[in-house]
Formats: sequence, C-alpha cells, structure tokens
Amino acid sequence: MQTILNQIKWNEAGLVPAIAQQHDTGKVLMVAWMNRQALQTTIEEGRAVYYSRSRKKLWRKGEQSGHIQKLKELRIDCDSDVVLMQVDQIGGIACHTGRHTCFYRRYENGRWNEVEPVLKDQAEIYKT
Amino acid sequence: MQTILNQIKWNEAGLVPAIAQQHDTGKVLMVAWMNRQALQTTIEEGRAVYYSRSRKKLWRKGEQSGHIQKLKELRIDCDSDVVLMQVDQIGGIACHTGRHTCFYRRYENGRWNEVEPVLKDQAEIYKT
Repeated sequence: MQTILNQIKWNEAGLVPAIAQQHDTGKVLMVAWMNRQALQTTIEEGRAVYYSRSRKKLWRKGEQSGHIQKLKELRIDCDSDVVLMQVDQIGGIACHTGRHTCFYRRYENGRWNEVEPVLKDQAEIYKT
Repeated sequence: MQTILNQIKWNEAGLVPAIAQQHDTGKVLMVAWMNRQALQTTIEEGRAVYYSRSRKKLWRKGEQSGHIQKLKELRIDCDSDVVLMQVDQIGGIACHTGRHTCFYRRYENGRWNEVEPVLKDQAEIYKT
C-alpha cells in the first residue's frame, strides 16, 4: 500500500484532486481532495473518502447524508497528480445541494445557467 | 465575459482545475489548470486552452501535436472552483504519452497497471 501511495505526486499541501464519476453513465459527479490517508482509506474501505480542507479532517463521503460512493475502479493520470474514481453513487445524489452532480451550472450565452434539478431538499438530506 | 469569470473561485495562484471529458463516450481524458485568461480564451476560441504551470504561459492544447480539444459544453461545480468541459478530442489522443486518456493506470492488487494502449509514438506526435 505504501508503494502505490508513494507513486502519487502529492502537492505542497499533501493533496491531490480526486474525480468521482458514475461508473455506468460516465457522469462526472464531483471533485474533492484526498491526502495520503484519504486515498488509503478509500482503497481499504472501497468507498470514496476525501480530505476536507475546510474541516481539516477525513471526510467519508455520505457520512451524514448516507449518499456514499462505492468504489468500482481507481485510476491515476500520467503525471500521477490526479485520481479518477469510478463509483456507484448511492441515492443518486452527489451534491450537497441535493442534485445528482455538483456540475449543475452550464455556460450559456454569457451566463452560468442551472441545468440539473434538485432531487432532494438540503434540509431533508442533512436533517439531524 | 468578466462577470462569468468573476464567478469562478480562483485559487491562491489564480488557477482552477479543468477536466476534459470526451463528449460522446464520457471518457475522462485529462485534467489541467486554467487561469482567467485561459478560460476566457477557451470560451472565445471554442477549444481547450490551459495554463501551463511549468512553462508559465497559456497552453493551447494541441498546438504542437494537432490534438486539439473542440469545446462542446462548459460547466462549473457547486463551489465554482472546478471546470468541466465536454470536448471532442481531435485525433483521439489526449495524453502526451500517445494514449487516448491520461488516466491509463488502474489500481489492481496493490499496483498501478497500465490498461490503455499507446496509439501513437511520442516521437511521432511531437516531431519537429
């Protein structure tokens, strides 16, 4: 495990961007960051685990919402500084706004237009 | 144009990661960085233009190889700090190694294994 982690080119903060892509549709769901421990935990637990830069700790995607991302495949790019995951997005909602994907705004005629529906209310997702 | 560029959350270096995805297959081809001028030029010219951190200048993808990426669609994520492009990869080769995608190594049994063929020799792509 340490060998494959050593082959990653971590940035000056010890992080790499990680892309989550829905394995059967190809939809890009989100991008977040991983540190060494996050990537190791992702592999060991078979689910996407990121590093939250704002909370400064591991972020097991779905720990609050239940919208976990089961890992199907893991790749790195030619520079070894970006991770690409094929995942199965449980609940079909990757975005904290309640949408399928975080990439819900499209450039159209000089504006960013929202083009993906809210599937579930945020208050409902993160109810205590 | 300035309005939509102002809505991007550029990092401390003035950059955001940009993902290029083949529009008709969903294959994630590569990730590189854009500064403000790169994104503006991408929109204006309808082709992927990145910012090369090593060369410290705009990088019109395909300027040497001819493997340009025609822009089909442009999105940003919920945090406004990642760009996702649907592109048409001319020549079918996004990676400088001569492969279709830069994400050609897959995690398998504790190793990163190469799983995408080299379609064209590097020396052939970048011949002077």
